[in-house]
Amino acid sequence: MDWNDLERFFPKNLDAGQLAAFKTAFYKRFSLEAHRCYRGKLQLVPKVPLGGLSSFNVWYTPGVSAVSTAIRDDNDLSFALTGRANRVAIVSDSTRVLGDGDCTPFGGLGVMEGKALLMSRLAGIDAVPLCVDNRDEHGSPSADKVIDFVKMIAPSFGAVNLEDISQPNCFKILDVLGEECPIPVWHDDAQGTACVVLAGLLNALKVVGKDIRSCKIVLYGAGAANTAVANLLVAAGASAAMMILFDSKGTLHKNRFDYRDKPLGYRQWRLCLDTNEDGIMSHEEAFLGADVLIALSNPGPDTVRPEWIGLMAEKPVVFACANPVPEIYPYEAEKAGAFIVATGRGDFPNQINNSLAFPSVLKGVLVVSASKITDSMAIAAAHAIAGYAEKKGLSPQYIIPTMLDTDMVPLVASEVAAAAVSEGIARNPITKNEVKTLVANDIEYSIELSQQLSESGLVKDISDDFVKKIVDSVAAEYL
Amino acid sequence: MDWNDLERFFPKNLDAGQLAAFKTAFYKRFSLEAHRCYRGKLQLVPKVPLGGLSSFNVWYTPGVSAVSTAIRDDNDLSFALTGRANRVAIVSDSTRVLGDGDCTPFGGLGVMEGKALLMSRLAGIDAVPLCVDNRDEHGSPSADKVIDFVKMIAPSFGAVNLEDISQPNCFKILDVLGEECPIPVWHDDAQGTACVVLAGLLNALKVVGKDIRSCKIVLYGAGAANTAVANLLVAAGASAAMMILFDSKGTLHKNRFDYRDKPLGYRQWRLCLDTNEDGIMSHEEAFLGADVLIALSNPGPDTVRPEWIGLMAEKPVVFACANPVPEIYPYEAEKAGAFIVATGRGDFPNQINNSLAFPSVLKGVLVVSASKITDSMAIAAAHAIAGYAEKKGLSPQYIIPTMLDTDMVPLVASEVAAAAVSEGIARNPITKNEVKTLVANDIEYSIELSQQLSESGLVKDISDDFVKKIVDSVAAEYL
Repeated sequence: MDWNDLERFFPKNLDAGQLAAFKTAFYKRFSLEAHRCYRGKLQLVPKVPLGGLSSFNVWYTPGVSAVSTAIRDDNDLSFALTGRANRVAIVSDSTRVLGDGDCTPFGGLGVMEGKALLMSRLAGIDAVPLCVDNRDEHGSPSADKVIDFVKMIAPSFGAVNLEDISQPNCFKILDVLGEECPIPVWHDDAQGTACVVLAGLLNALKVVGKDIRSCKIVLYGAGAANTAVANLLVAAGASAAMMILFDSKGTLHKNRFDYRDKPLGYRQWRLCLDTNEDGIMSHEEAFLGADVLIALSNPGPDTVRPEWIGLMAEKPVVFACANPVPEIYPYEAEKAGAFIVATGRGDFPNQINNSLAFPSVLKGVLVVSASKITDSMAIAAAHAIAGYAEKKGLSPQYIIPTMLDTDMVPLVASEVAAAAVSEGIARNPITKNEVKTLVANDIEYSIELSQQLSESGLVKDISDDFVKKIVDSVAAEYL
Repeated sequence: MDWNDLERFFPKNLDAGQLAAFKTAFYKRFSLEAHRCYRGKLQLVPKVPLGGLSSFNVWYTPGVSAVSTAIRDDNDLSFALTGRANRVAIVSDSTRVLGDGDCTPFGGLGVMEGKALLMSRLAGIDAVPLCVDNRDEHGSPSADKVIDFVKMIAPSFGAVNLEDISQPNCFKILDVLGEECPIPVWHDDAQGTACVVLAGLLNALKVVGKDIRSCKIVLYGAGAANTAVANLLVAAGASAAMMILFDSKGTLHKNRFDYRDKPLGYRQWRLCLDTNEDGIMSHEEAFLGADVLIALSNPGPDTVRPEWIGLMAEKPVVFACANPVPEIYPYEAEKAGAFIVATGRGDFPNQINNSLAFPSVLKGVLVVSASKITDSMAIAAAHAIAGYAEKKGLSPQYIIPTMLDTDMVPLVASEVAAAAVSEGIARNPITKNEVKTLVANDIEYSIELSQQLSESGLVKDISDDFVKKIVDSVAAEYL
């Protein structure tokens, strides 16, 4: 079955609204039925030669004893002698699964397996989906349990990707593990988004000819994603004093004692103290003369009002990243004066999508066996992503690469790795060029292996008939 | 490189002692260097078709949302819609790694990856090696931490294999999880060994024409393995009253208050109360008229004395299972009167080897998504293993299948699955024949895939030169 243009199977003559509804229902039904057939998306297979059972004298006992004692005597040899160096744990408590909220600890498993599949395909990473039950005796998800859990598995992995964990737990988990875990911990919903937003913003500012240090930036939404964006933008040179964040109650400022008094509200409270020097309270004052709006809040289309954009400075840059519907549609934003618009969606120009960052960032830290992911490493990634798009030629419609630009991964990974080496936190400090070659080879291998499995029939194809049946059943229900 | 008869690479004219020493050193060096080249033994690869990135609309967002919400609404759908049903977590704290003792939490990783490789090759299971750091604030390995850990990962796996965890922690971990974990938990060092010992004993008793219910059984060693053996033999019909266990201080009996008073000594204490009705204290009395000796204690060769065997009943059955050297060598035991001898080694007849049980038992519980592994399921496995060997024709030299009898797995798995179904603890109660076919197909698939990877060069072979260099370097050091 040819995966390109699946709409060829759709009923003809659907209007735009019908098509959008049909498409969503189709992908969901298709996904459910395909998952039922394949029962999982990844399998563990040997990467060593097996010659009957005698090879287990080498891969298992008695030979492997030499590996055990070598690692016992120098724990870091676990990176050289096992699969640890290329293995990522995707850890989630499924409390905020994509658009579906709390799905119980079990509910995120299909998503995490999908993320693992992306890591395999885009960066040749071995990723293990771990949906964990972190409910305490009252049935509430516990941050401490996830923290203990990640510390416990650290000996078996090269890095950890936190995923779909609701706030405020996600803040504490990341902040504590960032300090106390001996391997890099990445919260993709926060840091991944921040990294790609920064990449897009760096290029947008090149296009409009502004300097990040003198920009007035409004952040709409103050959750996991935008608080991470705020911190990363400041680390990358933006002025915290001129920055204004909004949450559902208004702006963040020095008198927002609700955050000071809230358990785990410390991250927003720090932003209350550091940003919005002038104590601005109203939308009008906040947007007046602002150069940049980054909205990561509630789905639109009317979350951000056109008249606010009308108040912004010359050539305003607007990122409206809520999914599935942006806080304001691009054409509305442009009508109101936006010069550059980015969204979270692939069907508009300038898609802000985590998958532009996480494969490269994680692969970069893995290949040098780094002990942490620092802000400078995320900033190095953002500059590399931005640089890749710049080489292709920037315009208001092209400030950021697309998911199809997979040749970007070795480049970005090598910059992340180089940043780790220069910060002295790489256990295996290889050169930038070595990283590039190694990562490119791993990706090529992963693609070749997947093709080989399909061609040999070891991975069975989906038939046109299967898809047609899905289309028919969705049509019967929705049209 | 042809893995059969690796001794062809060895120097000629080694005497038996030199050959044994050379062999061990060779396998260790080979293993270390091969692990350094391959950096891990397993990789995660897709088992679904990928058509460029558009297929991620189905395998990831937006389609996968239907999977998340379906599982949220019925958690057991995680078995049907994800890879969970075929996925085993191999959990170890590396405190008792094969013959090497405590190897720090990192040290067992190579072993667990080897075990995962065995599960893949022998039963088509996706096994994830998880070496965990369970040290408490005093640096001591904590049973409770492993218990919490396993409960947390249960939503992502179909079963858990505990491995290389020292006693007494391993008792508490297994006993608590057996009660409280919603998926089957198997402690291979204890239950696996017990299952294979029982299988061997069932056949040995057929050969000598005795009934397990009237046998006097001596168990030498009262650690994780032999306490599990004692419990399983009793569950299978052996008389507890006539059974006598030895530990390093003598026999277990009603006045062994050291066990009563020891934290986590409860398992041995229960055996103190239940076994050795006559309160026998001496070796002489214990062995006098005993039908069976099962030694799982310290490596020999002089741990079990020939004169004890001389005291046993007619046609004594002797299992001397310590590794690498049995408690008494088979020829010594036979000289002293043993009619049937089994050991843990592959170079003597009748090898008692966990790998005869764990692939089938775990595969059996996985295919029916069982919620537990009960004694009756382990006993069903033992009978099936014994029955397989019986069909080939029993003799004092052949009471148990070998690791090469891989066609046994579907058969044994189907008996385990059927036992789970008849106990009402199978979420997916398919028939015995369905299990057999499914398991046979999975194994065939796994072998074919591994061959395909080798033939296509995606898994690189080891060269003869590589092996010769190992031989030379070992020869230079040891000869």
